[in-house]
Amino acid sequence: MEKRKLMYEGKAKKVFETDNLELLIVSYKDDATAFNGLKKGSISGKGIINNKMSNLLMQRLEKNGVPTHFVEEINDRETVVKKVTILPLEIIIRNISAGSFSKRYGVEEGITFETPTIEFSYKNDELGDPLLNSYHAIALGLCSKEEIKIVKKYAFAVNKYLKAFWASCGVILVDFKIEFGKLSDGTIILADEISPDTCRLWDSKTKEKLDKDRFRRDLGGTEEAYAEVMKKLCGHIREDI
Amino acid sequence: MEKRKLMYEGKAKKVFETDNLELLIVSYKDDATAFNGLKKGSISGKGIINNKMSNLLMQRLEKNGVPTHFVEEINDRETVVKKVTILPLEIIIRNISAGSFSKRYGVEEGITFETPTIEFSYKNDELGDPLLNSYHAIALGLCSKEEIKIVKKYAFAVNKYLKAFWASCGVILVDFKIEFGKLSDGTIILADEISPDTCRLWDSKTKEKLDKDRFRRDLGGTEEAYAEVMKKLCGHIREDI
Ligand SMILES: Nc1ncnc2c1ncn2[C@@H]1O[C@H](COP(=O)(O)OP(=O)(O)O)[C@@H](O)[C@H]1O
Ligand SMILES: Nc1ncnc2c1ncn2[C@@H]1O[C@H](COP(=O)(O)OP(=O)(O)O)[C@@H](O)[C@H]1O
Ligand SMILES: [Mg+2]
Ligand SMILES: [Mg+2]
Repeated sequence: MEKRKLMYEGKAKKVFETDNLELLIVSYKDDATAFNGLKKGSISGKGIINNKMSNLLMQRLEKNGVPTHFVEEINDRETVVKKVTILPLEIIIRNISAGSFSKRYGVEEGITFETPTIEFSYKNDELGDPLLNSYHAIALGLCSKEEIKIVKKYAFAVNKYLKAFWASCGVILVDFKIEFGKLSDGTIILADEISPDTCRLWDSKTKEKLDKDRFRRDLGGTEEAYAEVMKKLCGHIREDI
Repeated sequence: MEKRKLMYEGKAKKVFETDNLELLIVSYKDDATAFNGLKKGSISGKGIINNKMSNLLMQRLEKNGVPTHFVEEINDRETVVKKVTILPLEIIIRNISAGSFSKRYGVEEGITFETPTIEFSYKNDELGDPLLNSYHAIALGLCSKEEIKIVKKYAFAVNKYLKAFWASCGVILVDFKIEFGKLSDGTIILADEISPDTCRLWDSKTKEKLDKDRFRRDLGGTEEAYAEVMKKLCGHIREDI
């Protein structure tokens, strides 16, 4: 596997072409942004944690019926993934009210929903990732009705698996954002990352935030929180073996 | 039917109690607001047109399978309606891109969708009527899954009927907002109004705007546009008889 030219540098990762047209190398940075790039900073060690956590979780999801882009972790910060055409949708599942949900609808954080909610936002930084529903996504030509159906099915499966998995690590999965992409044959798979950058994770006992909200809200101890939640995950995986 | 105390004064209508606990009198004002009340003005004669147009359209919808709150027009500006508990949702159907859709998703106005879109917003002036989907509405306890299903079914039926009806008047139904409410026995019916305040209506030939966008966008000729679209409707109804 040979790393070739930089294809895309995003807010949190670099994406490189490889000598295999169907594979990419994703390189996780410590860079952190919030509020659509308005707030910029860095979380030391984040790239390593996000890379390893995302890979561990995707491998488990794969075994539980959700196809993912994961191929092989090649070093602390870099992973080979299947190249996809990303659907320009951020899929957000919420188990508990928090963040933009609480702000948008004027409700406190921490309300557990009877059933999880799903929402889509249009992955478009210029427009500020606006909320949209499946009718809008289809009208805008972002994806087909069939693709939405598959994405929704997988997203709820991801939530079901991860909620239980994090619970057994002593962590509450509050909400998360995932992205899906299409392989050249049209197959839809889970792509991008699953990490404290993209999930809200609260300590089950103390309800302490172990995710990017520490950075967004200047709560301090961001590095420690990322390390802590990774420790909880690894501790559980060890027991598991 | 005796008019009793003012129950609610909204941005476009006053709502009065009556001697019948199950009926209200709605009184249409000429007041016009836009951008969540930021812009204020008046459109002379609007109250009369909106009252009459809403009643004509609701009676036709009623005959076509959509139950409505309409009971009886008692004068130019006032109508007896069935009292409902309004679902705090604005239901918006779009046939063609315009307004907030175009702005939110960065697309030009006037794109005809292959299939109409439906969206909900949370009827809450303080929060700025934020967009929300059925999962959110249920999580927030605004309505039940069954209610959403009925509302969606009726909303699409309203669009199907009104699109064809307006087309035969020489008018394009671009989009519209409707509200539903619950009778004391839980039955869901169409309430509020259907008028150039709540619909985008374009002249089929000239594409001229015959609705509240003339007021919102300071295009001038607002009174004339309301009168024109009412004339088109009445002309068609006369032919129809
Ligand atoms: N398997 C994949 N194939 C192609 N693109 C991917 C894949 N996984 C993630 N991506 C995309 O690569 C980029 C990752 O970098 P990131 O820093 O997250 O970018 P962004 O700032 O756009 O969110 C994202 O745009 C993401 O959609
Ligand atoms: N049949 C009905 N029963 C009870 N309330 C109604 C009915 N029809 C409409 N309403 C409500 O009455 C008010 C009408 O006044 P309006 O000027 O449109 O108010 P708003 O500024 O809240 O939109 C709205 O809040 C609407 O939801
Ligand atoms: Mg990203
Ligand atoms: Mg109103």
